[in-house]
Amino acid sequence: MKSPQSVDVLLRAAGIICSRDGGGLKAHLKTIRHSRRIIFIGCGTSYNAALAARPLIEELSGIPVTMEIASDLLDRQGPIYRDATAVFVSQSGETADTLLALEYALKIGALCVGITNTVGSTLARKTHCGVHINAGCEIGVASTKSNNSYDHDGIGYWSQQKSSQTRSEAIAKNLSGLPGKVSEVLKLDNEMRDLAVSLIDTQSLLIFGRGYNYATAMEGALKVKEVALMHSEGLLAGEMKHGPLALVDETLPVIVIATRVIQQLQARKGRLIIMCSEGDTSNVCPNESCRFIEVPQVEDCLQPVINIIPLQLLAYHLTVLRGHDVDQPRNLAKV
Amino acid sequence: MKSPQSVDVLLRAAGIICSRDGGGLKAHLKTIRHSRRIIFIGCGTSYNAALAARPLIEELSGIPVTMEIASDLLDRQGPIYRDATAVFVSQSGETADTLLALEYALKIGALCVGITNTVGSTLARKTHCGVHINAGCEIGVASTKSNNSYDHDGIGYWSQQKSSQTRSEAIAKNLSGLPGKVSEVLKLDNEMRDLAVSLIDTQSLLIFGRGYNYATAMEGALKVKEVALMHSEGLLAGEMKHGPLALVDETLPVIVIATRVIQQLQARKGRLIIMCSEGDTSNVCPNESCRFIEVPQVEDCLQPVINIIPLQLLAYHLTVLRGHDVDQPRNLAKV
Repeated sequence: MKSPQSVDVLLRAAGIICSRDGGGLKAHLKTIRHSRRIIFIGCGTSYNAALAARPLIEELSGIPVTMEIASDLLDRQGPIYRDATAVFVSQSGETADTLLALEYALKIGALCVGITNTVGSTLARKTHCGVHINAGCEIGVASTKSNNSYDHDGIGYWSQQKSSQTRSEAIAKNLSGLPGKVSEVLKLDNEMRDLAVSLIDTQSLLIFGRGYNYATAMEGALKVKEVALMHSEGLLAGEMKHGPLALVDETLPVIVIATRVIQQLQARKGRLIIMCSEGDTSNVCPNESCRFIEVPQVEDCLQPVINIIPLQLLAYHLTVLRGHDVDQPRNLAKV
Repeated sequence: MKSPQSVDVLLRAAGIICSRDGGGLKAHLKTIRHSRRIIFIGCGTSYNAALAARPLIEELSGIPVTMEIASDLLDRQGPIYRDATAVFVSQSGETADTLLALEYALKIGALCVGITNTVGSTLARKTHCGVHINAGCEIGVASTKSNNSYDHDGIGYWSQQKSSQTRSEAIAKNLSGLPGKVSEVLKLDNEMRDLAVSLIDTQSLLIFGRGYNYATAMEGALKVKEVALMHSEGLLAGEMKHGPLALVDETLPVIVIATRVIQQLQARKGRLIIMCSEGDTSNVCPNESCRFIEVPQVEDCLQPVINIIPLQLLAYHLTVLRGHDVDQPRNLAKV
């Protein structure tokens, strides 16, 4: 399977924000910090990776970050002012729609930043500046590498306020412990295989998340869809009562990345699988009818790095158990 | 079922843009036109209604329009600058998350505009200015009313350029013919019932749209989910190749609101239902294996007003045929 790009992007973003020299963005940091809007542009998994990084960038920079799916931006020819910074995310650096969106933004005259895993790719060459993810394909290694690139001396470069500095310090502390936490969460492999066995004949799967874990829900569902060929949909937990809750009954499995919505779901006798912090099961759901995925706790903004892993393992096992090819999803070419 | 709010909002938006006095926004029009960003904020169907209006507002005003689901904005405490205009959409004017987001934006000092169907609602009272949809519950009537409120003399108030004026004129011309087109598309009722019969035992349904019809796909899927209790997902057609295409096989029904992606789907032997303009079936899909929903053609930006109707009829018939209550979806209260 694709490397957990959301993990890499989030870590790199955190690293850059906390670093003194701004990584590959050095020459343009002043422009970025004075921009009136940061626009994240991508497709598929890369879009979800950017979505995972969004709340942290907003929190630490205080700049509005808006999201664009590349093809939709092009269809709409959405207005972009020159005081915006457009950030393009593509693992291959060759995603066609993302490159077309880049051309569109370059013509307008906005500062264009590339985030890619491929040195020398079109995205890397055509953007004004950028960051290489330098991620391997193995989960643990990816996180270690990203973490190693983090500069401990530069905490709080972006931070304008005392509270923000404290926050940066907490993130920094958590970043150094992250590889250990990743190894820990990988031990859920057998448990995720058991869960996959129980879901093997399921037609549909809903995954709810909110806040930092909205992107986790979206990406988990995309992977289940793409490789396990099961109709899985990621949804914002806050939108549940505006429609999706109607679907919930005793047969439809629902994965919830621990949020306040659990009681609403329990009242509807939902078939619940709850992801929560280790040792927190009794607080999250006093009723023992639920199934739990307990994950190590880290700073909230880094939690998606941990939380996506069990879902990726689940997608993997579902794929194998349903007799499909993990590395070559049906109908799809690498884009 | 809920009145087709997306229709109303879109028509009202078009009406205001073309009107000389700016409707209920009169006193604040200058501020709105000078704002650096327009933020549409809503939940569920109201969010989709705003999404349908977005491309037109962007096109005619040249101002970036960004979308926020109310609960997500609150979770992130997303930065909003004071030179932004925040537009809140809620049919009841009492949606809890939308009202909380309004308080958040008011504190920041952004201009807050309300779009609601309920005179005297909290949303109507707490925003700086706003627009009442004045929509009845019957589709034809709603469109007629909205259309009647449109001011024929004021074309092009927003338009800064000649090309934009021509566009406004085309929209104006189409607006006056719209009630007739709506009556015409309502004649698809029997056809949609037949389609519902063929889909009655289906587990999942995908609806693809792009551009002006991205919102149509999202709203059609939400309605099927909410009242027919069938797992239906609206997707941006441009994202198909980044994952969802893997799901497509000979059993999964896929509704496509005519776009360029049809060939990709045909190659995968998808079970296709294509919505396209009347008389356009042979251009859209030379192969006759597809099922068609032919709709009257109007100006592209107004097409969602027409296109959502067959999907609402489909959701209605699916609900009745599957033995559910159209007016009281399971698990949901009016919010």
